Amino acid sequence: MEYSLMLLVPAASFLALLFAGYLAAKVKSHDEGTPDMVAIAEAIREGARAYLKRQYTGVAIFFAVVLAIMVVLVVLEYIVVFVPLAFVTGGAFSALAGYIGMSIATASGARTANAAKSSLDAALQLAFSSGAVMGLAVVGLGLLDLSVWFYFLNWFYRDADLSTRITGIASTMLNFGLGASSVALFARVGGGIFTKAADVGADLVGKLEAGIPEDDPRNPAVIADNVGDNVGDVAGMGADLYESYVSSIVATSALAPAAGLSMEGIMAPMIVAAIGVLASVIGTFFVRSPKEAGQAGLSKALRKGVWTSSLLVALITFPLLTHLMPEHSTGVGIAVLSGLLGGVLIGTFTEWYTSPQYRWTRHLAETASTGPAPVLIQGLAVGFMSVAPIATVVAVVILVAFLASGGAGNYNLGLFGVGFAAVGMLSTLGITLATDAYGPVADNAGGIAEMTNQDPVVRERTDALDTLGNTTAATGKGFAIGSAALTAITLIAAYKEQVAILARKAGVSVDVTFSLLEPRVLVGVLLGSVLPFVFSAYIMQAVATSAQEIVVEVRRQFREIKGLMEGRAKPDYARCVDICTRVALKEMVTPTLVVVTVPVIVGLILNVQGVAGLLTGAVASGFMLAIAMSSAGGAWDNAKKHIEGGHHGGRGSGSHRAAVIGDTVGDPFKDTAGPSLNILIKLISMVSVVFAPFIIVNHLL
Amino acid sequence: MEYSLMLLVPAASFLALLFAGYLAAKVKSHDEGTPDMVAIAEAIREGARAYLKRQYTGVAIFFAVVLAIMVVLVVLEYIVVFVPLAFVTGGAFSALAGYIGMSIATASGARTANAAKSSLDAALQLAFSSGAVMGLAVVGLGLLDLSVWFYFLNWFYRDADLSTRITGIASTMLNFGLGASSVALFARVGGGIFTKAADVGADLVGKLEAGIPEDDPRNPAVIADNVGDNVGDVAGMGADLYESYVSSIVATSALAPAAGLSMEGIMAPMIVAAIGVLASVIGTFFVRSPKEAGQAGLSKALRKGVWTSSLLVALITFPLLTHLMPEHSTGVGIAVLSGLLGGVLIGTFTEWYTSPQYRWTRHLAETASTGPAPVLIQGLAVGFMSVAPIATVVAVVILVAFLASGGAGNYNLGLFGVGFAAVGMLSTLGITLATDAYGPVADNAGGIAEMTNQDPVVRERTDALDTLGNTTAATGKGFAIGSAALTAITLIAAYKEQVAILARKAGVSVDVTFSLLEPRVLVGVLLGSVLPFVFSAYIMQAVATSAQEIVVEVRRQFREIKGLMEGRAKPDYARCVDICTRVALKEMVTPTLVVVTVPVIVGLILNVQGVAGLLTGAVASGFMLAIAMSSAGGAWDNAKKHIEGGHHGGRGSGSHRAAVIGDTVGDPFKDTAGPSLNILIKLISMVSVVFAPFIIVNHLL
Repeated sequence: MEYSLMLLVPAASFLALLFAGYLAAKVKSHDEGTPDMVAIAEAIREGARAYLKRQYTGVAIFFAVVLAIMVVLVVLEYIVVFVPLAFVTGGAFSALAGYIGMSIATASGARTANAAKSSLDAALQLAFSSGAVMGLAVVGLGLLDLSVWFYFLNWFYRDADLSTRITGIASTMLNFGLGASSVALFARVGGGIFTKAADVGADLVGKLEAGIPEDDPRNPAVIADNVGDNVGDVAGMGADLYESYVSSIVATSALAPAAGLSMEGIMAPMIVAAIGVLASVIGTFFVRSPKEAGQAGLSKALRKGVWTSSLLVALITFPLLTHLMPEHSTGVGIAVLSGLLGGVLIGTFTEWYTSPQYRWTRHLAETASTGPAPVLIQGLAVGFMSVAPIATVVAVVILVAFLASGGAGNYNLGLFGVGFAAVGMLSTLGITLATDAYGPVADNAGGIAEMTNQDPVVRERTDALDTLGNTTAATGKGFAIGSAALTAITLIAAYKEQVAILARKAGVSVDVTFSLLEPRVLVGVLLGSVLPFVFSAYIMQAVATSAQEIVVEVRRQFREIKGLMEGRAKPDYARCVDICTRVALKEMVTPTLVVVTVPVIVGLILNVQGVAGLLTGAVASGFMLAIAMSSAGGAWDNAKKHIEGGHHGGRGSGSHRAAVIGDTVGDPFKDTAGPSLNILIKLISMVSVVFAPFIIVNHLL
Repeated sequence: MEYSLMLLVPAASFLALLFAGYLAAKVKSHDEGTPDMVAIAEAIREGARAYLKRQYTGVAIFFAVVLAIMVVLVVLEYIVVFVPLAFVTGGAFSALAGYIGMSIATASGARTANAAKSSLDAALQLAFSSGAVMGLAVVGLGLLDLSVWFYFLNWFYRDADLSTRITGIASTMLNFGLGASSVALFARVGGGIFTKAADVGADLVGKLEAGIPEDDPRNPAVIADNVGDNVGDVAGMGADLYESYVSSIVATSALAPAAGLSMEGIMAPMIVAAIGVLASVIGTFFVRSPKEAGQAGLSKALRKGVWTSSLLVALITFPLLTHLMPEHSTGVGIAVLSGLLGGVLIGTFTEWYTSPQYRWTRHLAETASTGPAPVLIQGLAVGFMSVAPIATVVAVVILVAFLASGGAGNYNLGLFGVGFAAVGMLSTLGITLATDAYGPVADNAGGIAEMTNQDPVVRERTDALDTLGNTTAATGKGFAIGSAALTAITLIAAYKEQVAILARKAGVSVDVTFSLLEPRVLVGVLLGSVLPFVFSAYIMQAVATSAQEIVVEVRRQFREIKGLMEGRAKPDYARCVDICTRVALKEMVTPTLVVVTVPVIVGLILNVQGVAGLLTGAVASGFMLAIAMSSAGGAWDNAKKHIEGGHHGGRGSGSHRAAVIGDTVGDPFKDTAGPSLNILIKLISMVSVVFAPFIIVNHLL
């Protein structure tokens, strides 16, 4: 057994965390700028900290409830004591990843704006370093959690026979996705509602009613909007991808025993992930000041870093796998490659549908001249259309990974390969997340520049960074969705394995064929397909409701605070932050309860067959809906930007008004509902896995 | 064998057709009114006929191509010669049903307007009779086609042993859904694009730009709009439900042999359907002049007819089934009942989400005061939310039907029961379709009254009928979707049976477990979930594009025809009808090709496993999307109507403008894309069934 290679995992974890610490120190060594810049940055930081504190309190309550249930299940001997422990560590690390991301992002906004005074390159370096801190913290913490548990469990089971040890390690580790998923759900949904309530509310009154520009300091919701970028787009995304990362690894490991692999099968996903971390660290050095001017140059700078990392992973994976699992190295290697390549293709297609450089978004901008209704119809059509190529890429990745890793002969080995495709896609997360997380920093920098009346060239530079950030955000979203779908499928396979193992242990006979036409499975599929629709309906409503409250508050301040519009008085920013915090936390209760209880209720009635159907239906419709929402939202946003760039009448024209309506509808699509669906499809799998021991002996049909 | 009961089928068919003929004659005996009413009615008739002529030419070309392919398959002995024949008769009857509906509807518009001069009751009777002609023609033709084929095949296989005879009859009859589905697709998609292009185009320029009322004779697209009601909402719906009706029956019959039933199992669905036809005829006599005034009275009048029919079916089914299949009578009877009841519940839930009497639509109307973006977000949320109860009803119907009919012990018998639930839901189609088809007639009557400047009381009466028509249309849509989902599931089961039979015949071994985690199945599910998204994207785009052409043309006429706005000159109506016809036919090619080729391509690559997954994925996501689109569209429409009724500022207010935008987006949702999805999910099953013999021996994986 090649335990020595496993040392790569903690090593990569430490390296990532150390390097993140070094970058964070470097970022903080820069000047935050003029006193008013510092003041605004401090206000944003304060708001973000206040929100996260209250969010984490809410999460803690949720964790306490779930822990209590778990303790009962432990006492009743349905689950082992490690499950609640793994649940807590997973949750804690995910929360920490989000917190670190938020801290560095709020520390970088003003610094990036200040750096933009000297040059575009300086600003890019700062914003990207800040993104890299978060990216590396996420993967570093992920591998840390994984390696601690692996070594502990390996020691704990030291006297057991190999088979018991392998199953014990795999099953226990699988459980800790639940903690990470739960935190991710709160972060994505809560943070997403916060950011969009503030954004939509600020825009509805500020831009549309009062006619003042975006990020105008007179708008009382402007600080809340900037806080939102940090708690939703940064902390939310960090927690989300932490969860994807860890889940894809543990789900793949969990399939190793069934695939006939021994300890090397459990370690392999972690080791490949470790390679990805090393490659990401190296990749960050390739993000260099753009020689060419403009978007193309910036975009190239980031892409160079990502591609270098991907290439490194591809090059190192094969020899490493040959050493680790000689029999399966080629197959699994191809699976990793297919995942890596799939991620790139998904990003490319997302860009094709959402970037104003291509025909879809251009045509959408053109449609705006005939009014809002055609913009909305056409934008939905673009989103719906984009589902086809992206889902096809994932379908092909699944088939290639399955067949290459030997699925035709050994079915479970094939599924193990599919899991590896997800691991491969996420292996370079350290750097891809960095390019993604840099966007909100640039966005905040722009806001701070605007609020402190900097020289127009500063705003120009931050705008250039921000526009690129929109594209990386869109590709990042595609990537998050694609990997979520692959991970979810791996989790369904892992669920099936767990059920088989548990049934053997409990001495019950459970049919795990999960035939499509078994009515319980079929009904499960139907109910599963419902979930994403209901879930996004709740979230969209929550955004609409909470934006409403902000609208009322902003109108009130405009009316009641004398001299506000003339710039003689300051608005009450804190009040808007408070409202957003309150509504975001309130509105996230129902969707969370739905996600956590539905798999259990379906299981209690329809047994594991119903649950397997539920998971499949939810992945199928949730994946499509998430893509459709993200793409439509991105296309609307960029069509608006395209018009603002002077096309079809430019700012203030009828086209622009129509496009702004499209963008406002797209906001909750792409930044709240869409990304939350990624977590939905994984969290319900996690809940199902944890409650499986209870369900297989307690069910109606 | 109780062949004698089978005589009920042709008997019911003749009765329905005769009664439809009698009602048609009665409708036509009424006066069409003043010369200008006759002239407008004639223009609408002419436009509708011209469109259908060209649509059927397009259909004929499509049929010729498919027939050519089928002939090749017959020569290669993949399929028997009856398949192409059944394909043609199914298509011809479906087209005829649509044509009859269109003819009677265009004959009734002016007559209803004229009758409204004397009383509301007279107008209701006329419009409802017209709807009943179509409803009864659809079920009458359906049973005619079925009984002719049954008797012919029974005679043809007279010397074969019973088992060969049963399978021969069941398999052949299953095939003729393909013809009906193809015609239905063209009718729904083409007619749907036509009607919405005209409607949206007329509104965008007329209402929003020129500020003239709906149905104003100065609007050049107004005749096209009325033609659209007849070719889309009437002919399209007729062809669609003809197909649902026939498919649910043949799919259920096709499951009889596997369920261990003999000839009685094949005849039973037809006989229950025949009972439903008799009950529908009787039910029409219960639609009596409302004693109470207003909507409630009208609504009660129609409901009385439907409920009487449902009750009759429930009462007669049990003794009849006891006679026909004593062993399974209770179980199958419960399945029929669950379908009937499920249909009622779906209608109730649809009304709950879309009627301004309830909180969802009221709240939506309220949201309109904050502008179009919140209306759109909230409307989509309403649509998405409505998916939950409706899909749950279908899920429960499936479980009840499966378990009641003995699925726990005999799996195929359970699936046969699920098929019967669909038959039960559609059994009263004769009368439910009548209440549904009456809507467009009332709509047209209102248009004609407006265009010929009738007394306001006439318009008031037709408006009362029209508003009720919107509700029946919404419940009718829910019902169409629910039955489509059940039928599609029955078709998947029938597909599996066909594959098993064909594989035995061809001597190939085919795994028909269709396990969820078999990668071919899983990938099929993913690809299947994509289809409805892409399909609706195409259709929405088609509506947007073609409405665009109408906008340009209407603007041109307003500009170029002197004296048009002053009422001194007439617009060129025919030109708008022509444009709609052209674009509708052009735009329906791509979606049709997608639907017809995808199952074959997926089969060629992923074998029958991939196809089974494809069908399931398409049903799951298509069903949800169809509900979401129909409900959102209905809610937007009624929120607008609610505001027009004087709430939240009434006509001309900001709320009204926002609601009109919502309604315009909802139009292609509820009248084109949504209903077309019903056909999509059944047509791909039909294509899969027909090409199965080819696929099981030609596939890549």
